[in-house]
Amino acid sequence: MDTRTHPARLRLEQLRIRMAAQGFDAVLLPSSDPHLSEYLPGHWQGREWFSGFSGSMGTLVVLADRAALFADSRYWVQAEAELAGSGVELVKIATGSSAAHVDWLAAHLEAGQTLAVDGAVLGLAAAQSLRAALAAAGIALRTDTDPLAGAWPERPGLPTAAVYEHRAPEAPISRADKLALVRAAMAQHGASHHLVSTLDDLAWLFNLRGADVSYNPVFLAHAIVAPDGVQLFVGDGKIDAALAATLAADGVQPRPYDEARAALGALPPDATLLIDPRRVTLGVREAVAPGVRVVESINPSTLAKSRKTAAEASFIREAMARDGAAMCAFYAWFEQALGREAITELTIAERLSAERERQPGYVSLSFPVIAGFNANGAMPHYRATPDHHALISRQDAAGQGVAADGLLLIDSGAQYRGGTTDITRVWPIGTPSAAMKRDYTLVLKGTIALSRARFPRGTPSPMLDALARAPLWAESLEYGHGTGHGVGYFLNVHEGPQTISKAVPTPEMAMEAGMVTSIEPGLYRPGRWGVRIENLVMNIAAPADEFGDFLEFETLSLCPIDTRCIDRSLLREDEVAWLNGYHAMVRERLSPLVAGDARDWLQARTAALD
Amino acid sequence: MDTRTHPARLRLEQLRIRMAAQGFDAVLLPSSDPHLSEYLPGHWQGREWFSGFSGSMGTLVVLADRAALFADSRYWVQAEAELAGSGVELVKIATGSSAAHVDWLAAHLEAGQTLAVDGAVLGLAAAQSLRAALAAAGIALRTDTDPLAGAWPERPGLPTAAVYEHRAPEAPISRADKLALVRAAMAQHGASHHLVSTLDDLAWLFNLRGADVSYNPVFLAHAIVAPDGVQLFVGDGKIDAALAATLAADGVQPRPYDEARAALGALPPDATLLIDPRRVTLGVREAVAPGVRVVESINPSTLAKSRKTAAEASFIREAMARDGAAMCAFYAWFEQALGREAITELTIAERLSAERERQPGYVSLSFPVIAGFNANGAMPHYRATPDHHALISRQDAAGQGVAADGLLLIDSGAQYRGGTTDITRVWPIGTPSAAMKRDYTLVLKGTIALSRARFPRGTPSPMLDALARAPLWAESLEYGHGTGHGVGYFLNVHEGPQTISKAVPTPEMAMEAGMVTSIEPGLYRPGRWGVRIENLVMNIAAPADEFGDFLEFETLSLCPIDTRCIDRSLLREDEVAWLNGYHAMVRERLSPLVAGDARDWLQARTAALD
Repeated sequence: MDTRTHPARLRLEQLRIRMAAQGFDAVLLPSSDPHLSEYLPGHWQGREWFSGFSGSMGTLVVLADRAALFADSRYWVQAEAELAGSGVELVKIATGSSAAHVDWLAAHLEAGQTLAVDGAVLGLAAAQSLRAALAAAGIALRTDTDPLAGAWPERPGLPTAAVYEHRAPEAPISRADKLALVRAAMAQHGASHHLVSTLDDLAWLFNLRGADVSYNPVFLAHAIVAPDGVQLFVGDGKIDAALAATLAADGVQPRPYDEARAALGALPPDATLLIDPRRVTLGVREAVAPGVRVVESINPSTLAKSRKTAAEASFIREAMARDGAAMCAFYAWFEQALGREAITELTIAERLSAERERQPGYVSLSFPVIAGFNANGAMPHYRATPDHHALISRQDAAGQGVAADGLLLIDSGAQYRGGTTDITRVWPIGTPSAAMKRDYTLVLKGTIALSRARFPRGTPSPMLDALARAPLWAESLEYGHGTGHGVGYFLNVHEGPQTISKAVPTPEMAMEAGMVTSIEPGLYRPGRWGVRIENLVMNIAAPADEFGDFLEFETLSLCPIDTRCIDRSLLREDEVAWLNGYHAMVRERLSPLVAGDARDWLQARTAALD
Repeated sequence: MDTRTHPARLRLEQLRIRMAAQGFDAVLLPSSDPHLSEYLPGHWQGREWFSGFSGSMGTLVVLADRAALFADSRYWVQAEAELAGSGVELVKIATGSSAAHVDWLAAHLEAGQTLAVDGAVLGLAAAQSLRAALAAAGIALRTDTDPLAGAWPERPGLPTAAVYEHRAPEAPISRADKLALVRAAMAQHGASHHLVSTLDDLAWLFNLRGADVSYNPVFLAHAIVAPDGVQLFVGDGKIDAALAATLAADGVQPRPYDEARAALGALPPDATLLIDPRRVTLGVREAVAPGVRVVESINPSTLAKSRKTAAEASFIREAMARDGAAMCAFYAWFEQALGREAITELTIAERLSAERERQPGYVSLSFPVIAGFNANGAMPHYRATPDHHALISRQDAAGQGVAADGLLLIDSGAQYRGGTTDITRVWPIGTPSAAMKRDYTLVLKGTIALSRARFPRGTPSPMLDALARAPLWAESLEYGHGTGHGVGYFLNVHEGPQTISKAVPTPEMAMEAGMVTSIEPGLYRPGRWGVRIENLVMNIAAPADEFGDFLEFETLSLCPIDTRCIDRSLLREDEVAWLNGYHAMVRERLSPLVAGDARDWLQARTAALD
């Protein structure tokens, strides 16, 4: 890109004019919104606007004479390309070191200077560490202002999508029961009031869904649960009269979205407010009326919604079968078209998504399809674009089909009214090499090892991470991402509190029955190929001995795991038995849902391995 | 025991008279000394004196009208027996919940009352949480006094054992080089001075050893490393003139033991003092002169001594072979004597220790022998006594040999000038049951799984814990202790910073080459039998791929693992291959060191499994 035309250059100049006028020496733009969401409405995508970097995570710091974008290894290639010519430098940070920009600021600002950041989008915990670090360096911090005000004329407004009900039977627990459950937890903490700002918690608690951001069926809101009712702060016009009447029956009163802070300031002086310090921003915390006692604990809804009920589990199994049927239909087409038609990574995303759309209960994708061929598959967050994507098969000038050789990684999922899916498979195109097969098989061993694990109820989920990595570690191989994330129920594809990763365990990460988590070890050979094999699993009760309750995983995702990529000599008999058992289940569960080519494909791809 | 005669009753009354005279409503007696040691000199065993509980961990709280002893599950049986009749109640706490007594105190004392604890034996981190909890409850805390002063006329004095040099070749790094290494780390922290209070750190740093406590070859001291020299605060007469001259050559000046606090108070005002908040007490922290800048970080010596050098590793291998040879000699006698002579758990401890004493380089045991038959083996911290021990074999009235059936667990180890050993084996007596064999084999699978593990350099050691537990978890089985602890070099048998356990990982627990750790999964059937199979292992470099440095374990301990207890159907071929490989190594390494019956026994017990 011509450096003179990078759009961020002019935008940063506009921002710096405003900074100078307001007396700010630096501005911090995190990837964040007032709800600490993963996917941000355009209104809060200032970091992308002012830098050009479009990755889902990254922090921008703007000074008078320089600007820096902090991103971890998943984004380095993308960030270098998108920042080229912007004048914004890339600071490469380790995954998980979310505070690297704080040290950078302390080093690059002088005592007496001022940093501005919008406290309304700054997580409370992050704000506290930022404040401490800057105070130690003598740097002033302004959090009571939006530094983008006046600097971004094109800024998108707030999303206005309608809010709708998630109804029975797919929503088996009533709103009243959920509110009673939360109020019981509040009582245990001695709290009279409870503020909820996280969108997945709100959607679950009220059995409501929305479309304010892509992929996650949530709506922008805050709520205050009080003894005598609930105030739900949500944009005007998003809740229609009929829904308002339904909510009123449960004591839920819609209020304007921007009145949440004022309501916090008007809490009665004898109130005790329960907040989750990891799930509210500095802005709302500082809006709480002085004198109100604050109790900090995880949102009761965060724990409750992570433990899917038996009724929810039934709908999840149905959604998984529908999702698997869509995958069968897609792959049956794909294997027939391969070497005959033009197929690119973009074609794959379109065809696969179209198959999902046909399924009953489908609402939307749960994240953008990641279809990465060979080197593109080595980038865990790769996304094909019209400008940059790989060709997998085509017809040559003579009308002859031509297909490349290699590995095709497809990570995809959808939102159904009865569950959220997320699955990754890798398929051979042409003849995979011995090295590809070895990598594939070692990753599969990791998926199998963790899928078969049993463990005590209450085990901190990070403790399980090593079980998936061990088969790769044994060959001096490693992957740079977590092994598994929690998954919502027709909600966010990434939901806590559990995580199977190198995260430092906290008590709230204890494994409990009903939690749904991904198992997705991988292996990435930069510039060559990538492998990741992912299923969703649910914690279910295992037989007990005299040593307390144990859990094991029910594998929920239903789709063949390709056996042509397997190096059979690397699998033990017990691993083959697990794989054959999984394929027998997949065939039994999906056969009634597919027909024709898809059924033939399912039969072939679930054949038992000797 | 007759309740009127429990010695703790009268002792507590004496203590309460002193408490009343000093205005203390409660006294806290932790299991601790000014060096935060695991094994305490008698001078600081006030908790045992005033309660009767002799376990190695436990906290006593004494109020005017009640007293409570806090202990975890390892000690419940013992504590109940020893406290019976004392009037001290047992509070059962979860392993690792070291602050349970703090909540208890907050609940049982009233605002305005005063708790006294000797700040000289209170860890800094523990002191901070205690202070915060009591302050919240309005309870005053006195830490500037020893509440036992005047209440314990029989109190033992300080130990007076001589300090001696750990010399080359077994001590391959000179004192000067170690001091240079520590000073380099101090410089990185910007520290001019460094206080060391932990005895293993002091012993390592100065290449000195002592005998002030049982099993750990350490001596009571503190040290202040300054730019121009080192003050070593150690009891009068413990360092002779020749040693003093040697130390002086390295700039180390012995000073009276009780002058450490005064020296901290006399630090120059421009000093910057490096201390390890986990390895100093409140007493020494508060003795630091006001105005001195304090930098908190792990003791540089703690990290350095955990990483054994190649020269140390050679001596460790030799010590392990000597230790294994002693085990062979003992077991050869044991199997011949079984059913012919009277053998008790006490006999075993005596005979096994006698074999170790014969080995070159032997200094002492590294902990009391744990020999537990059947139900006694189910208590991980069991110790046979003259009053209570199991009989394993005897001659009946007719002179016929009689042996019981079951499992015999022996956990033992020694200090050699070239290393510290710690090994657990389980042997069948008579015919073990199928259930015993199953438990034994499942534990062995855990030992093997972790022993074979490879992992990235820098992996937090707690991440590896699940690898040893997985084979037991798979059968809904679990053990209540950690899987492995760090081990010193002719030093403490329990040394950090690494631990393979459910501990919350910290950066200092990163696995590095040269660390020596135990692998000791277990399984305990209360009232029936216990199994634990333990080896020491050392982190060594593994072959690298493109994903950075990897480590794997070299198994150091050399002694057959009984194969008669194995349920062969539960072992995979790769597990049998590991075991056969281990036994081939044991035979090769120990054969030159044993003769006669011991050699025959070694041959038989290392026979390959089909």
